[in-house]
Amino acid sequence: MQEFTKFPTKTGRRSLSRSISQSSTDSYSSAASYTDSSDDEVSPREKQQTNSKGSSNFCVKNIKQAEFGRREIEIAEQDMSALISLRKRAQGEKPLAGAKIVGCTHITAQTAVSGCLSGGPGLGHQEGWAALILLDVPVLAGVAVFAWKGESEDDFWWCIDRCVNVDGWQANMILDDGGDLTHWVYKKYPSVFKKIRGIVEESVTGVHRLYQLSKAGKLCVPAMNVNDSVTKQKFDNLYCCRESILDGLKRTTDVMFGGKQVVVCGYGEVGKGCCAALKALGAIVYVTEIDPICALQACMDGFRVVKLSEVIRQVDVVITCTGNKNVVTREHLDRMKNSCIVCNMGHSNTEIDVTSLRMPELTWERVRSQVDHVIWPDGKRVVLLAEGRLLNLSCSTVPTFVLSITATTQALALIELYNAPEGRYKQDVYLLPKKMDEYVASLHLPSFDAHLTELTDDQAKYLGLNKNGPFKPNYYR
Amino acid sequence: MQEFTKFPTKTGRRSLSRSISQSSTDSYSSAASYTDSSDDEVSPREKQQTNSKGSSNFCVKNIKQAEFGRREIEIAEQDMSALISLRKRAQGEKPLAGAKIVGCTHITAQTAVSGCLSGGPGLGHQEGWAALILLDVPVLAGVAVFAWKGESEDDFWWCIDRCVNVDGWQANMILDDGGDLTHWVYKKYPSVFKKIRGIVEESVTGVHRLYQLSKAGKLCVPAMNVNDSVTKQKFDNLYCCRESILDGLKRTTDVMFGGKQVVVCGYGEVGKGCCAALKALGAIVYVTEIDPICALQACMDGFRVVKLSEVIRQVDVVITCTGNKNVVTREHLDRMKNSCIVCNMGHSNTEIDVTSLRMPELTWERVRSQVDHVIWPDGKRVVLLAEGRLLNLSCSTVPTFVLSITATTQALALIELYNAPEGRYKQDVYLLPKKMDEYVASLHLPSFDAHLTELTDDQAKYLGLNKNGPFKPNYYR
Amino acid sequence: MQEFTKFPTKTGRRSLSRSISQSSTDSYSSAASYTDSSDDEVSPREKQQTNSKGSSNFCVKNIKQAEFGRREIEIAEQDMSALISLRKRAQGEKPLAGAKIVGCTHITAQTAVSGCLSGGPGLGHQEGWAALILLDVPVLAGVAVFAWKGESEDDFWWCIDRCVNVDGWQANMILDDGGDLTHWVYKKYPSVFKKIRGIVEESVTGVHRLYQLSKAGKLCVPAMNVNDSVTKQKFDNLYCCRESILDGLKRTTDVMFGGKQVVVCGYGEVGKGCCAALKALGAIVYVTEIDPICALQACMDGFRVVKLSEVIRQVDVVITCTGNKNVVTREHLDRMKNSCIVCNMGHSNTEIDVTSLRMPELTWERVRSQVDHVIWPDGKRVVLLAEGRLLNLSCSTVPTFVLSITATTQALALIELYNAPEGRYKQDVYLLPKKMDEYVASLHLPSFDAHLTELTDDQAKYLGLNKNGPFKPNYYR
Amino acid sequence: MQEFTKFPTKTGRRSLSRSISQSSTDSYSSAASYTDSSDDEVSPREKQQTNSKGSSNFCVKNIKQAEFGRREIEIAEQDMSALISLRKRAQGEKPLAGAKIVGCTHITAQTAVSGCLSGGPGLGHQEGWAALILLDVPVLAGVAVFAWKGESEDDFWWCIDRCVNVDGWQANMILDDGGDLTHWVYKKYPSVFKKIRGIVEESVTGVHRLYQLSKAGKLCVPAMNVNDSVTKQKFDNLYCCRESILDGLKRTTDVMFGGKQVVVCGYGEVGKGCCAALKALGAIVYVTEIDPICALQACMDGFRVVKLSEVIRQVDVVITCTGNKNVVTREHLDRMKNSCIVCNMGHSNTEIDVTSLRMPELTWERVRSQVDHVIWPDGKRVVLLAEGRLLNLSCSTVPTFVLSITATTQALALIELYNAPEGRYKQDVYLLPKKMDEYVASLHLPSFDAHLTELTDDQAKYLGLNKNGPFKPNYYR
Repeated sequence: MQEFTKFPTKTGRRSLSRSISQSSTDSYSSAASYTDSSDDEVSPREKQQTNSKGSSNFCVKNIKQAEFGRREIEIAEQDMSALISLRKRAQGEKPLAGAKIVGCTHITAQTAVSGCLSGGPGLGHQEGWAALILLDVPVLAGVAVFAWKGESEDDFWWCIDRCVNVDGWQANMILDDGGDLTHWVYKKYPSVFKKIRGIVEESVTGVHRLYQLSKAGKLCVPAMNVNDSVTKQKFDNLYCCRESILDGLKRTTDVMFGGKQVVVCGYGEVGKGCCAALKALGAIVYVTEIDPICALQACMDGFRVVKLSEVIRQVDVVITCTGNKNVVTREHLDRMKNSCIVCNMGHSNTEIDVTSLRMPELTWERVRSQVDHVIWPDGKRVVLLAEGRLLNLSCSTVPTFVLSITATTQALALIELYNAPEGRYKQDVYLLPKKMDEYVASLHLPSFDAHLTELTDDQAKYLGLNKNGPFKPNYYR
Repeated sequence: MQEFTKFPTKTGRRSLSRSISQSSTDSYSSAASYTDSSDDEVSPREKQQTNSKGSSNFCVKNIKQAEFGRREIEIAEQDMSALISLRKRAQGEKPLAGAKIVGCTHITAQTAVSGCLSGGPGLGHQEGWAALILLDVPVLAGVAVFAWKGESEDDFWWCIDRCVNVDGWQANMILDDGGDLTHWVYKKYPSVFKKIRGIVEESVTGVHRLYQLSKAGKLCVPAMNVNDSVTKQKFDNLYCCRESILDGLKRTTDVMFGGKQVVVCGYGEVGKGCCAALKALGAIVYVTEIDPICALQACMDGFRVVKLSEVIRQVDVVITCTGNKNVVTREHLDRMKNSCIVCNMGHSNTEIDVTSLRMPELTWERVRSQVDHVIWPDGKRVVLLAEGRLLNLSCSTVPTFVLSITATTQALALIELYNAPEGRYKQDVYLLPKKMDEYVASLHLPSFDAHLTELTDDQAKYLGLNKNGPFKPNYYR
Repeated sequence: MQEFTKFPTKTGRRSLSRSISQSSTDSYSSAASYTDSSDDEVSPREKQQTNSKGSSNFCVKNIKQAEFGRREIEIAEQDMSALISLRKRAQGEKPLAGAKIVGCTHITAQTAVSGCLSGGPGLGHQEGWAALILLDVPVLAGVAVFAWKGESEDDFWWCIDRCVNVDGWQANMILDDGGDLTHWVYKKYPSVFKKIRGIVEESVTGVHRLYQLSKAGKLCVPAMNVNDSVTKQKFDNLYCCRESILDGLKRTTDVMFGGKQVVVCGYGEVGKGCCAALKALGAIVYVTEIDPICALQACMDGFRVVKLSEVIRQVDVVITCTGNKNVVTREHLDRMKNSCIVCNMGHSNTEIDVTSLRMPELTWERVRSQVDHVIWPDGKRVVLLAEGRLLNLSCSTVPTFVLSITATTQALALIELYNAPEGRYKQDVYLLPKKMDEYVASLHLPSFDAHLTELTDDQAKYLGLNKNGPFKPNYYR
Repeated sequence: MQEFTKFPTKTGRRSLSRSISQSSTDSYSSAASYTDSSDDEVSPREKQQTNSKGSSNFCVKNIKQAEFGRREIEIAEQDMSALISLRKRAQGEKPLAGAKIVGCTHITAQTAVSGCLSGGPGLGHQEGWAALILLDVPVLAGVAVFAWKGESEDDFWWCIDRCVNVDGWQANMILDDGGDLTHWVYKKYPSVFKKIRGIVEESVTGVHRLYQLSKAGKLCVPAMNVNDSVTKQKFDNLYCCRESILDGLKRTTDVMFGGKQVVVCGYGEVGKGCCAALKALGAIVYVTEIDPICALQACMDGFRVVKLSEVIRQVDVVITCTGNKNVVTREHLDRMKNSCIVCNMGHSNTEIDVTSLRMPELTWERVRSQVDHVIWPDGKRVVLLAEGRLLNLSCSTVPTFVLSITATTQALALIELYNAPEGRYKQDVYLLPKKMDEYVASLHLPSFDAHLTELTDDQAKYLGLNKNGPFKPNYYR
């Protein structure tokens, strides 16, 4: 298994689909804690499990929680009317009839875990499918799930393999998040890989790996990069982080935002969201940037652009959103004031050089779940959240609405690839067509009771646009 | 005990001091849940308890958690530098030497519980005292605490009595929050009451009861209303609720704020805080008001002022902050759309007419802690938070900083009353002197690294002000 | 005339009523400039003037502009529906029938000028009256106006005298703004003064003078301080300055706000308004304060509280809103960076020590109207606006809506004093009753299409309130 | 001249460079008005003019105002440090030595006027050149200017011709804004056109025309589209309009923003800027959109997305920012309430169907400069600004800072095209290279005292980036 590099973004932003489970976990935590202490000894791989329909083609930790999961689905569906509309439309057309989808995406909450799903007869027949992708709940009739909390890396690959290597069923579509499943099929089952009609990839890392494969001339299947669709990007980053930075900080530290001095490293979409929210609640926010365009935007939005070292002594909170590594170094950490909170909203787990804190002269004290005090010899404490891993994944939740956007985008990409006429897509990586991006957005407007204006014929002609879109050039963000 | 009306604001805004405990509870919840299921059978009143110093003059649930409490104090102290400065100053002067303080204030989190404290030799000798009031931690050496989570009403009065009726010790100051302790002493121990040198009362209800006593000519002790100090009011209401509305909604429902339509009933300080926060995060906010001045302010701040019935069909969230009762009626609830969230940030527990929902035609489903789905016969669900009790107390935390303001104000009021020269205070209810209000504020400025400007002699003369304040007339807010 | 000190707040915040005229001036400026260069030689006091109704009981600069004034009134009335409703109500009741009102208030724009009005048969008969007060337009049939732009101080007192000393007509009510008229009547016409039924005073200075008179036991007439009504205060200061700071800076300097570093001296209502607006448009704002309560509010609102000297080298704009003097000293001015803009939004004209800039080593260059460059020997320029006088009066306009609030408040105060039963008001200074304050607000709600909620009987009882208000205690702001 | 369609965006967003002149015009308006009434009879084309250096190779209205212009340049330079740095760098390298630049760009304020400039020896020798482009001031030694306020269309083409057709001087670079100059050279002087080394085009329209030329295979010169550079776009649209919407409305109508209901048609960058500013100042803002992605963003930013007809009866202000035509129709105008303000911040002059208002049943009344009341038979007035032309050009100013960005971008594009090695640019239209876009931004950071962070070698490697940029993909906005 050495050929698979340790997937660096396993806890990356892509892992949005974990949120529901997180909140569910919270709500049955007392039950869960019992379970944890008792059943944990036996690996799910060893258990004999059968669901209520009599199927055993799955592997989860505790099939008894299916009922709980079903209720969470019901609750969540109320926020996912877009997906419901799509499913309704799909019911007649059955656009995925015949599709055999194997998927790999995050399922549970506390740690990075991958569940793999071997899709049944497709969206046409199997309405619960899209919701399943979205909801990641342990068991749903008709879809096989292999995943549990606390999987080892070995378990992870075992689960993947169980999804791909199924007697009498061969996948013809891949829905991936991180590229691991794609890589496995490509390496271990080349004959299956050749017959795949399309790959839909959700993550930055997975997309990166696909482009590399494509450059190397080894991508024999059309793939769609849904990570870079406008709608998904804005929601995963700007809008979602605007809320989750507050939520994550509050749940872990109960910090009052008003009057706090905060430095946000990086003013991309995530940084913009964090800065806007904190400013709105009365924090004084500084920004660090390497890109002059983003830096100028920060200026115009009312933030002082500084080098980290200029403000590190005075700030109460340090937040990284860079995608870079070692942005907060040991030297910075040494100079922070007592009680300074440090956390990571970015992309990699190395934005804060946590390794440099694991030294004998420093004492670590776990004060709450996800909260460590790192204590200097002179008594100074730095409050480190989630051990430097992504705060919004570890200590917050992702709103169902954001998940709905992701799931709808994935479903549309699957439908597009599966139904596209011969030749539209070659052996390459594609952005989601602008028009479908717009379609995802339009499906979500009714939940805000938002009413689109339609172009008159005359106006459409004047603008040189089709009345149904696309309305913007591809590079529009 | 019939003479004591069921204290209606037991869960009112005054109960700020519960927050730390709440977060602490969260952090050791797994331990706690075991304890709950095992030890709960025995009432703390039956237990023999001794603390590490050998004293048994207290009654709590589990003295073993003292160590945990001590750490929480340490953490909290970092946010309470104002109190620490005050304590430092007091160390030399010992302004409360000789004071024997009996106090009654909220201590634990999940339910309304009152702890009573029979203070020892006063702030001068006992530095931990103010922090204790503030922190509500089960046991602290030298201060007797009688309180536990899950107290019955009978337990509550038992605790109060144990605090007042102490062999060889007689209180000469009362620190109250709600007026129950004052009432008890007044009724049961009139001879003690007559010798009390001052009462400091923190809550709206308690203040109201004091004014009634005063009107009736029965208040034979000077009392200080610290509830209405500017600093406390702004922090308890505007600044605190600006953050806790977000926190409370997020922790219970994971709702995304962006694009949500919200109606806030009442545009006082609490309503202003809620509206500002929600608007800043992209919600569309409507306001209802009875007072034209507040209504006009809502207009100028960018909120449409409507009657609740005008928007009730379209909103996603209903928040009450009125202090009034039956603001949200069954008729409103009947007309809400599916999944509408309803919660109370106000003062009383009757702002939402929850009683009207306890009808056979409606099904209640507890989906998470503090979250009920009330289900109509046609399947419509209304999401009711905290059963209509105060959201910010039940589902959020109060920042340590706000507690610090409250505690500092209380401590200063105690010192003022205890040390005031004969005749400054008569048998009446007083507002905290403006200058002390300003002093509380000034003690909290260093934590923001804020630097006050000093008047020159010339400027002070021009303005007709003393250089050390007070700087504003009494009615300034 | 030496006994009258030069009225220090002639250009103070009270002078709101000048705004309409200012904009009107702008719009006929080309015509005006001709007039200026030709007619200016002859003092209006020398001219024979007759209006369209044949009356000569007035004195203005150019009666021919009456038509222009009438149109401006029409335009303005559209924003003053509150006043119109009040007038409608008054039409039936004629609450001011018999009142003979002499008034003194600002009329024109560019310089501080006072016009005095000898009211005719009162609001009942003369509907245009209240609008006239408000609009300060040169001539309106039935009301005598004595005022013109460019009055000398001597002219000013001449005008006042002409209003008071009228054959066959004796005022019984005074409507004053600054206290000059009151003082004149008190000193020169003591017999008239004794028969006055009430004084309505709008300005801080005038109110101050009334309190002094009252303290000295010389106030033999009830007076109403309308300056401190909540509605007026909020609109004159917070809401109005939130807009006028932007307007004033933009019109004079075309400065871009985004990214600019600004220091605002004083965080009262005016400072709060300025800070909020500038922050919202992307400026980075620092605050200086002497009052710890206001300083703490600034912290919670997200502003760093500093001493002026800490930031003076780095800021792009300095704004004073203190009411104090010499807040910006020569030392500060010496240390400002090149192109720094300095202006005054406060109360007095001495907040910036402009005198210290009138030194031989500094060169003044008038670059635009209201904009001077003060140039240091090394070439550094400081951009001084309005020579340190109030920016919002000199370089901006006051929205008609704010004027409407002021005028309505004045009119209600006149009505209240004129109609109050014997004994309600003694020889003292009164705040506008809370209920009337609320009434002013309620009259302005319809223009926002705002709908007040009414208390049910049950709710009113629960709250202990009258259903029609007042809804808040007197000290509520 | 019939072959040239009337240039539709003559008043379009491109015309940024007019602003300085506008403010200057204001500041010497009294002088100007005399001039207007006297000299206007003689066309500048007829006058003999000589500047202080003895040159007659220019044509302006009044060469005597050169001194005034020079001072305005000095003032403006203080806000254009970026351009100054660029000029400093260029002084040594003389990157435009040998370039002969002919330019056509907007110069004066009140009406759409084009000035053409025949550049001398280029930026290397002529430092004032870039500032001239920017400042549009009538006369600057060494650069020939042909332009005056009130040019007829015929004058316009005459000026252009005079710039191109110069004895002994032949342009080799074109700097255009709208495409008129390019078109003229292309049509009238094909031999000159063939020898042009590059075209820099600033406007949407001009870019559009270039792409058409390119598609038709007739573009024999490389052209650079600077309109779509990120920096320019954000500043021209988002940041600039965020301020100019307030400024434009205030200067024309003195409207108070607080509490006003406003509908903004279009939520592109301009719409986003308008909405953010108005919301921040307390307006209630509705948005109309045709594009679901923009509509969803409006939702998340807290604006209700409606059809115009849904809110047209209730709004106080209607603002168009669509680029479309007939967005506000006569039907909408008929249904507006009395005093509704209507204005255009968009791209074309036809967004509001003003033609439909020029009907006999409606009365037009010019109440101020740029402000018309259109009066319905029932007395209803609609307040139309700038006759439906662009508000930010007609009634506001563009901050010098924005002009600096535009000018710097143009200058860099000229340098790039002029110095690019053979073959880098073919006969096509190019976007400004990302790295130069970033360079423009970086030149403007010092004026905010903003400090960029530099990547370490290690970080650059990790990110796969060059330490000097570009830092983002080309499609990043």
